[in-house]
Amino acid sequence: MESTMMSCPLLVRSMLERAGKLFPGVEVVSAEPSGSHRRCKMHDLYCHSRKLSAALQGAGVTRGDRVATLMWNGQEHLEAYFGVPSIGAVVHTLNVRLHPDELAYIVNQAQDRFLIVDDCLLDVFETIRPKVRFERVFVVDRDAGTLPAGTESYETFLSSAGANPVYPDLAEVEAAAICYTSGTTGAPKGVVYSHRSISLHALAISLPDVLNFSRHSTILPISSMYHVNAWGFPFAAVMHGSKLVLPGRNLQPSALLDLIQQEQVTLAAAVPAILQSMLNALEDNPGRWRLPESLRLAAGGSAAPETMLRRFDKLGVEVLHLWGMTETSPVGTASTLKPSMSDWSKDRLYAQRARQGMALPVVDVRVVGEVGEAAWDGETTGELEIRGPWIASSYSGGSQPDKWTADGWFQTGDIATIDSEGYMKITDRLKDLIKSGGEWISSVDLENALVSHESILQAAVIAVPHPKWQERPLAIVVPKNGSTIDTAQLRAFLELRFARWQVPDDFVCVDELPYTSTGKLLKNKLRQDFSSWRWDCPRQPVR
Amino acid sequence: MESTMMSCPLLVRSMLERAGKLFPGVEVVSAEPSGSHRRCKMHDLYCHSRKLSAALQGAGVTRGDRVATLMWNGQEHLEAYFGVPSIGAVVHTLNVRLHPDELAYIVNQAQDRFLIVDDCLLDVFETIRPKVRFERVFVVDRDAGTLPAGTESYETFLSSAGANPVYPDLAEVEAAAICYTSGTTGAPKGVVYSHRSISLHALAISLPDVLNFSRHSTILPISSMYHVNAWGFPFAAVMHGSKLVLPGRNLQPSALLDLIQQEQVTLAAAVPAILQSMLNALEDNPGRWRLPESLRLAAGGSAAPETMLRRFDKLGVEVLHLWGMTETSPVGTASTLKPSMSDWSKDRLYAQRARQGMALPVVDVRVVGEVGEAAWDGETTGELEIRGPWIASSYSGGSQPDKWTADGWFQTGDIATIDSEGYMKITDRLKDLIKSGGEWISSVDLENALVSHESILQAAVIAVPHPKWQERPLAIVVPKNGSTIDTAQLRAFLELRFARWQVPDDFVCVDELPYTSTGKLLKNKLRQDFSSWRWDCPRQPVR
Repeated sequence: MESTMMSCPLLVRSMLERAGKLFPGVEVVSAEPSGSHRRCKMHDLYCHSRKLSAALQGAGVTRGDRVATLMWNGQEHLEAYFGVPSIGAVVHTLNVRLHPDELAYIVNQAQDRFLIVDDCLLDVFETIRPKVRFERVFVVDRDAGTLPAGTESYETFLSSAGANPVYPDLAEVEAAAICYTSGTTGAPKGVVYSHRSISLHALAISLPDVLNFSRHSTILPISSMYHVNAWGFPFAAVMHGSKLVLPGRNLQPSALLDLIQQEQVTLAAAVPAILQSMLNALEDNPGRWRLPESLRLAAGGSAAPETMLRRFDKLGVEVLHLWGMTETSPVGTASTLKPSMSDWSKDRLYAQRARQGMALPVVDVRVVGEVGEAAWDGETTGELEIRGPWIASSYSGGSQPDKWTADGWFQTGDIATIDSEGYMKITDRLKDLIKSGGEWISSVDLENALVSHESILQAAVIAVPHPKWQERPLAIVVPKNGSTIDTAQLRAFLELRFARWQVPDDFVCVDELPYTSTGKLLKNKLRQDFSSWRWDCPRQPVR
Repeated sequence: MESTMMSCPLLVRSMLERAGKLFPGVEVVSAEPSGSHRRCKMHDLYCHSRKLSAALQGAGVTRGDRVATLMWNGQEHLEAYFGVPSIGAVVHTLNVRLHPDELAYIVNQAQDRFLIVDDCLLDVFETIRPKVRFERVFVVDRDAGTLPAGTESYETFLSSAGANPVYPDLAEVEAAAICYTSGTTGAPKGVVYSHRSISLHALAISLPDVLNFSRHSTILPISSMYHVNAWGFPFAAVMHGSKLVLPGRNLQPSALLDLIQQEQVTLAAAVPAILQSMLNALEDNPGRWRLPESLRLAAGGSAAPETMLRRFDKLGVEVLHLWGMTETSPVGTASTLKPSMSDWSKDRLYAQRARQGMALPVVDVRVVGEVGEAAWDGETTGELEIRGPWIASSYSGGSQPDKWTADGWFQTGDIATIDSEGYMKITDRLKDLIKSGGEWISSVDLENALVSHESILQAAVIAVPHPKWQERPLAIVVPKNGSTIDTAQLRAFLELRFARWQVPDDFVCVDELPYTSTGKLLKNKLRQDFSSWRWDCPRQPVR
């Protein structure tokens, strides 16, 4: 039996239209390369985005055409977020930190027709220019300087068009945005978000039990707009008429904290590495910043260590722990607590918040081990699988790695447990597990323990081949400023929490750890660097 | 270009599965006919609903089959909300207060196969029994008494089946629930909700700027589960793991207030007539109830007068104003405020909250007058039109009144304005407007003013034919206990707010006003009753 409901599609442009009509006076603040803050209103965003739509239509862009962006988080990037998909074209956000070869590969693979580029990123554009063929390149030209030959002014392009694009009838499953996974191995793979997936994701992350987006919120997406749509924050903010603060290219902790204080931000989102730098700045400069009372921080991209949650709490700032991937739009789970936990001990609550949390509504997660779906006991590990309307079912073009089960779930490559409350915890990446003498050792648990030690700033634990035990864990640590590492003391510290055979056999000090452009630890690189490591005194791990 | 996202449908059963897995310990409390409170857990709801699904499958119910309910708000009704649609069947909630002829018409028109009925509603069932043909009738038998011949025990039916229904693959546009509009004119018309419309509506009403549903909420839907799915509250509550309190058949203000106090309700929803009775009880019995501090009340179904908002505020209870219809699932707009209004005067804020408010995300409203779409000036009136994924595009079966525009908007029959902030205000029903000497007079405005007078409990203003002015307004009022009506004083009171020609020519006192079964004023009945009204002294209205 068919329902009698209207078949109105969920479209990205309806968020823009809503903000233009209902929240025209709400501010969008962009931090400029110069350090100044440029302010506009949702009304301007609405008009500019529609002008961009009309200009693109005038330039021959039609449904399904790709328009690339090479931009920081700023007003014009936001205009592209809405102006491009509103006419059925697809906004392809390029990761400015990728290697030129990778960037060029992605541009060519996606067959991008046009590019919009920030003037301060023209140097990146020049590195890929010989390898790609954009039909037209529009430069957001803040200094109104001389543009490179073959490029045009974004501003001029916009003013070339009328204010009213012709919105085509779109189906909600049509493509709206593309992002390539910046995987640590293999060629980058395209994930194509639909109007439907973006809309449903925006609704779900806005719920009170997830991120609580409201017209009373002021949102700072520090997470890049060139990576997984800045976690969908720009879409949710515009849908609800939240004030938006866009940090531009300067992600130094003091610049971010200034922005939070000046604009009275209530919700900022970033990877733990950035949050950690903010935390250090706050602790090192007591009294320098007066943070808004209602400030919350959303952490995602990699695990937020429990110590970070505790230290931010001491400063009166709540950290919300999210989990997701490029393939999951990205938010799949959130670790907000249940009212039934109100009588739990503080330690137990921290441990719970340090888990990656519960699946959002409309999304399902499960953990599958060697003998099928794992029990929700908080102990049985397996690979995390996820299913839902904003989860990828394939990659666009190129090779198709086998990441989907026969019954349609996405295999994340993360090793996880789910506890009896339904909270998922990532214990490791499948490829980062250490297999010693037939037993698995979690590198993530060891890393979390290490960074909770007073003398350690960052830590990585990797598997290194071992003549007897197949693999053994090696810890690579960055000491805190001025700290020295006492190996025996570190070992004793870990043995309080781990079985002795799980504790790394050795500890190496380095000045810094290698990270991907999206803030993830590059363990592949470390494994390469230490592939010829020799265990000095092949100690017998005690079992 | 197609997206690479999964095509997972939005289904009602995913809410149930979510609650069963993530919130098994959350309570569902049902007030029984005896006055006692029966408690179960979401885990029980999950198991029972699945048993109902399995039992219905065992009895031959398949996709698209209709299963009717004749029930108050209680646990078993909630089981039907999930157990029926989960297997693709359609739950048809029968309005227990309709006339038997109307009920029988609806049952036959919908071709309901089975009926689930509360034992305390068997008398209603008997009145329609000779006129309908249910294949099987299941009685929720609280007293375990003797069931009428030809009926079966619901409990026995459930225990006849296994715990695991076979969930068919469903499309999200398939029917999940039907409700007939209890219109004041014409034959009842069926509105068929889809899995998609129910899911999207549940997500949208849960947003922080709408009703703020959370696992920290305790929800009391006083609005009937037999009418427009109790405004979607049961679905949203189960989706988020909110504690649910179901009031059964006793909607006396003291019973409701007891329930709110005992169960620490944070959000209750009802028509203004019920809220008014609660307000009167609270004011008449100071100190009798200690209401939860976080209690909010949602008002909908007809306009909540500003005086009601003010009086509840004095008691520390916030009233949220909603607007909707059976055809709109029902919530279309909500009158929560904007942060930019924080410096408005108290009076202006009350006037704003008394408007019906802004369209929810994904829904659009417009007001169309004789010369096209009305400006958002708060003054230009026209018919309210609405469009969105949970708005009806037709009625099921029967005659199809012409309620849709050529471009696909639903014409509500409400006369409204939209102000510059985007807040809609219903000024009247199209058919309730009074046309005097070529000018329109709003009956709703007059009614709202009248009930703000200290001596008046309820008021209706209707058009009565007039020899000179075509129509003139007549006020029909219910005085407060012990009050007398001074016509001259009432007229003077109204002339402070209205042009003299808009003020009713006469005032009639009655003991009570006629309401529909869903709490709406039956103006048709009043117009009939007063159709032969003679203006005693045909006063010349002053213009």
